[in-house]
Amino acid sequence: MKIIRFSYAGGVYRGVLTGDRVDFEQAGGNRTRCSLEDVELLPPVSPGKIICFGLSYAPHAEELGMDPSGEPVIFLKPPSALTGHGGKIVIPDISRRVDHEAELAVVIGQQTSRVSRTDAFSKVMGYTCFNDVTARDIQEMDGQWTRAKSFDSFAPLGPWIETELDVSDISVEAYLNGELRQKGRTSELIFGVDRMIEFVSRVMTLYPGDVIATGTPPGVGPILPGDVVEIRIEGIGSLVNEAVAET
Amino acid sequence: MKIIRFSYAGGVYRGVLTGDRVDFEQAGGNRTRCSLEDVELLPPVSPGKIICFGLSYAPHAEELGMDPSGEPVIFLKPPSALTGHGGKIVIPDISRRVDHEAELAVVIGQQTSRVSRTDAFSKVMGYTCFNDVTARDIQEMDGQWTRAKSFDSFAPLGPWIETELDVSDISVEAYLNGELRQKGRTSELIFGVDRMIEFVSRVMTLYPGDVIATGTPPGVGPILPGDVVEIRIEGIGSLVNEAVAET
Repeated sequence: MKIIRFSYAGGVYRGVLTGDRVDFEQAGGNRTRCSLEDVELLPPVSPGKIICFGLSYAPHAEELGMDPSGEPVIFLKPPSALTGHGGKIVIPDISRRVDHEAELAVVIGQQTSRVSRTDAFSKVMGYTCFNDVTARDIQEMDGQWTRAKSFDSFAPLGPWIETELDVSDISVEAYLNGELRQKGRTSELIFGVDRMIEFVSRVMTLYPGDVIATGTPPGVGPILPGDVVEIRIEGIGSLVNEAVAET
Repeated sequence: MKIIRFSYAGGVYRGVLTGDRVDFEQAGGNRTRCSLEDVELLPPVSPGKIICFGLSYAPHAEELGMDPSGEPVIFLKPPSALTGHGGKIVIPDISRRVDHEAELAVVIGQQTSRVSRTDAFSKVMGYTCFNDVTARDIQEMDGQWTRAKSFDSFAPLGPWIETELDVSDISVEAYLNGELRQKGRTSELIFGVDRMIEFVSRVMTLYPGDVIATGTPPGVGPILPGDVVEIRIEGIGSLVNEAVAET
């Protein structure tokens, strides 16, 4: 099932997408439907937190000159950085190099703390596409990655949550203006999705709607104003965003 | 004015504290009052994000062997780490060294983006005490600071928001079991509070309730189960939390 969140006729709703048909419930409980083309997609959840894994795919760690062995590295992005499918990625004028990072995102469905790897998937609502947009020059300058990854619009998420998906071996790709730039398979993750959920929940309680971004495959590269970035994940679909200069 | 958030008779409310009298509005709009001792204080806001500054006081940067010059360093703590005045700090069994870090916290009152230093204070609702609890060994191991600072209960905040306060030169202290351990004055901040707000808002839109923690003065040190940590800030009051072992 595909779950979307969208604005329509001045309201914000959640609905179920089947083909291009959107079924949803209006205020008062009336069930109704409309066409996908009539709605504006929003990020499919409003997470309390967005936890990201770094260096999850060994080849990407190597392209950054980092050691992928050892414990996973996590960082946070603020919810204020979210934008949905079709939202603009704003390139800040204080960065000379902003990169795309294609990632599979896990959306938590049930509150959990210290969940085992075995039970981890039972806490998941579904999966969506994520672009961990990063000001690479600021990342290198600061040491800590937070500022480089927290600019408004640096967390495109969507287009929808796919609730039925086996994420053990699916492709994760980025296309820049239609050209393939990043490509990996989740089977190449150093830590699998179940182990990531276990790892994070050992530190912090996860709540419904929280998002875990599982790291990016090799091939990250710069986005310039006017570029169109597509994050395409097998079994989910495509998250597409155009970059614009800061005004 | 002191603004508190609290649970009372099964409900959660905001109120104004005068001496030990709490004035608040119940469901239905009835104004009522009770005594401070009859309520359980909660973190005074539910922030969408908690942005923290590192190495704000030169002597603390030096005690960690870090260079305090250059641009400020920021990181995020998740809202799931919050606890209020009187909440327990849970020492995770996977850390051998958990430290207190006394900090002045700014609570944002108005949405703002790219605000100037001059206008920064007009976006502030008020100030409270914050303890940026940190698993020092994990911080050193990970490089990125997020995991070390994100454990549940590692963000004590409170006891209340003081809306009338000049933060240009006030003392920020930590007491461990009644003994003074950290001491600094905000006049010693490398970047003043107004510049911190300017700096963060250049990156991310700030929303009402967002919290900016302004960094810690020298004297950080370990907390053990059974210890009582007090963060005391001149003109605000004291945030007191007891540490307990993870069960």
